[in-house]
Amino acid sequence: MRYFEDLDVGGQESVGTYEVTESEIVEFAEQYDPQPMHVDPEAAEESMFGGLVASGWHTAAMCMRLLVEEYLADSGAMGSPGVDALRWHEPVRPGDELVVETEIIEKRPSESRPDRGLVRVDVGVHTTTGTLVMSMESLVFWERRTPDED
Amino acid sequence: MRYFEDLDVGGQESVGTYEVTESEIVEFAEQYDPQPMHVDPEAAEESMFGGLVASGWHTAAMCMRLLVEEYLADSGAMGSPGVDALRWHEPVRPGDELVVETEIIEKRPSESRPDRGLVRVDVGVHTTTGTLVMSMESLVFWERRTPDED
Repeated sequence: MRYFEDLDVGGQESVGTYEVTESEIVEFAEQYDPQPMHVDPEAAEESMFGGLVASGWHTAAMCMRLLVEEYLADSGAMGSPGVDALRWHEPVRPGDELVVETEIIEKRPSESRPDRGLVRVDVGVHTTTGTLVMSMESLVFWERRTPDED
Repeated sequence: MRYFEDLDVGGQESVGTYEVTESEIVEFAEQYDPQPMHVDPEAAEESMFGGLVASGWHTAAMCMRLLVEEYLADSGAMGSPGVDALRWHEPVRPGDELVVETEIIEKRPSESRPDRGLVRVDVGVHTTTGTLVMSMESLVFWERRTPDED
């Protein structure tokens, strides 16, 4: 079990991969982001993207799956209050394989809750061919092994 | 068709509603965020949430569905470079009905692309019982009716 005390600012990890398929792009977008470039391969061909691309929220969701399975599993992570500076840099297309790279950029004990700290993680989603497609700074509440007794 | 020129800073709109179900919370989370409080009603009961709650990314996705259908449809919206200050304030539970409230907080012509402007929209996701569950500042590229000719 990895606790708040075990995290180092500057610590980097890489998790993945997630294979992006056309059918999953369309299925996600039909439910949550039914715009032509996400759901209609022919219309997408005519669009500025030149083909079907994943909803940005789908890319975020695929990133989360990798983080849950390989980064947050067996850890003291207690959920997230939010995310800063979420950016979609390049389109994600069928056949892409996604890798997530993380770096801890800040950690501090919670002021109000002695059982946890707040950790800021820089998250980059890349294709295996080296393109950065999405980035964000994710905030995570993380359990302390030894609660503050002040 | 609503273009960049038609948008007013301070302009507010409300779109909705989206009904949250237990089956959809579980289905989304099994694919993208398989943590116990999202996929396992019994484990969720024992957790600090006291019951099943939606993945934050699922809440963002449901918000997007409302925006696509009722806010971005028949508009010059051309996609988003990203989102700032995404925050999950309160849990979203089965039976909640979500409403999205928007306010345009900034608009400016693109410096590099004369056919579009960049619009910053404050987005709040509320339950119909008045709880703010999620907020973000969404950036949107928006087509101009009359491209800049400078």
